[in-house]
Amino acid sequence: MSKVIDLNCDMGESFGNYKIGQDEEVIKYITSSNIACGFHAGDPNVMRYTVKLAKENNVAIGAHPGLPDLQGFGRRNMDITPKEAKNLIIYQIGALQAIAKSEGLNLQHVKPHGALYHMVASDKKLGQVAVEAVLEIDKDLILVCLAGSEIIDIALKLGLKVAREGFADRAYNSDGTLVKRNIAGSVINEPKIITNRIVKMIHQQKIDTIDGKTINLHTDTICLHGDNKNALNIIKAIRKTLAEEKIKVADLKYFIN
Amino acid sequence: MSKVIDLNCDMGESFGNYKIGQDEEVIKYITSSNIACGFHAGDPNVMRYTVKLAKENNVAIGAHPGLPDLQGFGRRNMDITPKEAKNLIIYQIGALQAIAKSEGLNLQHVKPHGALYHMVASDKKLGQVAVEAVLEIDKDLILVCLAGSEIIDIALKLGLKVAREGFADRAYNSDGTLVKRNIAGSVINEPKIITNRIVKMIHQQKIDTIDGKTINLHTDTICLHGDNKNALNIIKAIRKTLAEEKIKVADLKYFIN
Amino acid sequence: MSKVIDLNCDMGESFGNYKIGQDEEVIKYITSSNIACGFHAGDPNVMRYTVKLAKENNVAIGAHPGLPDLQGFGRRNMDITPKEAKNLIIYQIGALQAIAKSEGLNLQHVKPHGALYHMVASDKKLGQVAVEAVLEIDKDLILVCLAGSEIIDIALKLGLKVAREGFADRAYNSDGTLVKRNIAGSVINEPKIITNRIVKMIHQQKIDTIDGKTINLHTDTICLHGDNKNALNIIKAIRKTLAEEKIKVADLKYFIN
Amino acid sequence: MSKVIDLNCDMGESFGNYKIGQDEEVIKYITSSNIACGFHAGDPNVMRYTVKLAKENNVAIGAHPGLPDLQGFGRRNMDITPKEAKNLIIYQIGALQAIAKSEGLNLQHVKPHGALYHMVASDKKLGQVAVEAVLEIDKDLILVCLAGSEIIDIALKLGLKVAREGFADRAYNSDGTLVKRNIAGSVINEPKIITNRIVKMIHQQKIDTIDGKTINLHTDTICLHGDNKNALNIIKAIRKTLAEEKIKVADLKYFIN
Repeated sequence: MSKVIDLNCDMGESFGNYKIGQDEEVIKYITSSNIACGFHAGDPNVMRYTVKLAKENNVAIGAHPGLPDLQGFGRRNMDITPKEAKNLIIYQIGALQAIAKSEGLNLQHVKPHGALYHMVASDKKLGQVAVEAVLEIDKDLILVCLAGSEIIDIALKLGLKVAREGFADRAYNSDGTLVKRNIAGSVINEPKIITNRIVKMIHQQKIDTIDGKTINLHTDTICLHGDNKNALNIIKAIRKTLAEEKIKVADLKYFIN
Repeated sequence: MSKVIDLNCDMGESFGNYKIGQDEEVIKYITSSNIACGFHAGDPNVMRYTVKLAKENNVAIGAHPGLPDLQGFGRRNMDITPKEAKNLIIYQIGALQAIAKSEGLNLQHVKPHGALYHMVASDKKLGQVAVEAVLEIDKDLILVCLAGSEIIDIALKLGLKVAREGFADRAYNSDGTLVKRNIAGSVINEPKIITNRIVKMIHQQKIDTIDGKTINLHTDTICLHGDNKNALNIIKAIRKTLAEEKIKVADLKYFIN
Repeated sequence: MSKVIDLNCDMGESFGNYKIGQDEEVIKYITSSNIACGFHAGDPNVMRYTVKLAKENNVAIGAHPGLPDLQGFGRRNMDITPKEAKNLIIYQIGALQAIAKSEGLNLQHVKPHGALYHMVASDKKLGQVAVEAVLEIDKDLILVCLAGSEIIDIALKLGLKVAREGFADRAYNSDGTLVKRNIAGSVINEPKIITNRIVKMIHQQKIDTIDGKTINLHTDTICLHGDNKNALNIIKAIRKTLAEEKIKVADLKYFIN
Repeated sequence: MSKVIDLNCDMGESFGNYKIGQDEEVIKYITSSNIACGFHAGDPNVMRYTVKLAKENNVAIGAHPGLPDLQGFGRRNMDITPKEAKNLIIYQIGALQAIAKSEGLNLQHVKPHGALYHMVASDKKLGQVAVEAVLEIDKDLILVCLAGSEIIDIALKLGLKVAREGFADRAYNSDGTLVKRNIAGSVINEPKIITNRIVKMIHQQKIDTIDGKTINLHTDTICLHGDNKNALNIIKAIRKTLAEEKIKVADLKYFIN
């Protein structure tokens, strides 16, 4: 296990007149940006702005496709078929690819958003088509997956590069899934707890669960959040801890092969 | 002027449960398909289906980006800025490119839809960004433009390949613009009149206007329509006339350089 | 049990340029129309057109609220909260009420659409808010519910009038739910089988299930479908059978108190 | 001319996860709230929240219907027909009416939003249908109109109550229209200038224009804005000035007959 970690954050989730997140600040501290593609959030103008922002900050860019549910921010499960899932993932990656190309950039990775992220992680049929979708567009893209989830095996078997993602500010169930957002204690806000979890994730490859257990968790990238008031303080605390622990921070393409 | 003509038709304009057009029949008679990209019509599943249909019928595929107005089918002018226009064109082309790629195909052309088509034809700022949008994604794409419109010079000056489009079933104003759909006589339904207009367009490079004049019209491709009951009869009559007149029918990439 | 039956049909499910159903024909044979309200289908113009059509044909009108999923036609389950469900039902009923009012009409009933219909039928929390939604807007409205489902008790307890709906052309599970559309045999197309089922529903208050059982089914209204080629033949066969069996056909407000 | 003025503000323009405005603060200083109805902004949940907020603060509520353009926040002109305009206005008013009713409230007024506001003010056909739309739903509603615009005469002729609206923080052209937002100087941010304009509007019924003229302006209500950082300071300054000038602040229904 490397002592290198990628720090990723969802970006470009504003829409039209609506602004969300603190992308201009957060971008300074991360190595990979997951850019919303217009279904759960984002629009063509926001996508362009965010790609440029990542370019100026030398941050790798990835597609962040979501369910077609702007009102629910892509967080409400929807009964979509594998065929529908495949097509909407390809559509969204392609849209961002074109905007990136017009700025002279290539995509590094793909990370599904919200409900779609968890649906492809745990449903084998959806996982299969998500992997196929990425492979069919560009076999060099890296798929960012929930660490420990079933989609990882599917991806590796089909020859797709995978980055395992850990959540330092979200509580875990003992089966390795995240505790749902509507359950008390699901989101962790205390910087010290978050940094301790990160250190354990990286040095021991383990994480504590909400029911008091400890499970294995191989992590290549940690998901940071920029959409709350305390976000920047947490992110700065994380960078400080990583520096103190001499853990190198680099984007995925430097260590995922 | 070549005695070769391309026949194009808007395709893939169904949406979800809604079906429009007779793509499966029309595809047999055309050489270039303009595939809706999800803004004015189409969705990722319809796009996939339509790309496959074109592939099976050896018909060239192009992106058909429209305004974000599904209810108005992209036919209602909207006051969008050049920046917005550029980004939504790139977004939509990219989305279709990715679906085409996953089917092993490349795009041949781009033809904006409806209100956007006419807006980029006549507004220099919008024309400029439409040309830039295509060039930045793939400089080998052909932009399909209203024959005689200002965007043609912009495109040629910037090095983008252009196909001039004529409308055999739409009435013309004497300035070369189309008579608006809501004006009586704007749409022509009589097969004999339509085929006569095509013959004149190709052999004489001229078209008669609604006010009794005749104007020059250099035409590389003719727009066919598949969305009314009589459409197939008209299309068959056109193919018969072209054969009788010994006018070769081929897709754009064979004669646009 | 009355020998009176209401015949309802979903109407106004066209959208913008997209046409679905054969409303102009079907309206002649039904007594209650469920009018889509712009979320899963329909738009303000289609709603106006459909209200006028019902008015001209003396057919009662009701709101047909659906999930915010036009692409999925409201047939894909979505994880919405009770609060969200309540608000979107009220929103849609109100929108139709206003259009009805501008045509001088009142609504007779409310029938949720597609996935929402089945979600409120079987999930007590969603059923509760659906009932509250209707009551808070107009306590004289009749809620059309899946016959035998849990929401009926909730509605009656809160004082809301209920019409029990039977599906003659959809297969039943032995728990009284409908067999899902994606399962073979879920949709019945044979007119003779459909009319036999209706006769059994009305005279015996029973229906046969897909696994060979027979269950009780108290039915006030039967759902007709207008969106397939054979629809009109089936509907005419049903009206003929009802006439032969001397079963009176009347809209809900004449016999639901 | 009364020395009474109404203060109105657009509210409920958040959407799903997106928050805009400072409704909870601004509501304390206004007398009439214009609540977005889901087309240009707002959703059923936000509408409910905003109606409750107005109720708790004893602020009158009105519908704020907009163009179907969430990405453009209803600020981009769209070529809609009078028929389309009428139906979408009625739809949106009805949706809010139902939510208000479920909270035990009635609407006081209707104020179209953004591009629609200016379209109905200056285009007679659109003005006509906007007036009809309101009258057909509830003839006691007050239509808030751009002071000095043509729609006022249409409304009064048809018997609809009208409130004339002035904009203290927007520059005027000498024909009484507002200077467009994309023109320098169109938005005024200096509290002292704004309050001076208000005093002149109320005491002299005049306003200065961007080209150095002074025009007549009969004003019943002033539009406040809550969507920028300085908004609350401006609003407080306005209330202070009105108190000093002994101008009574009351909602429209107290003085519009």
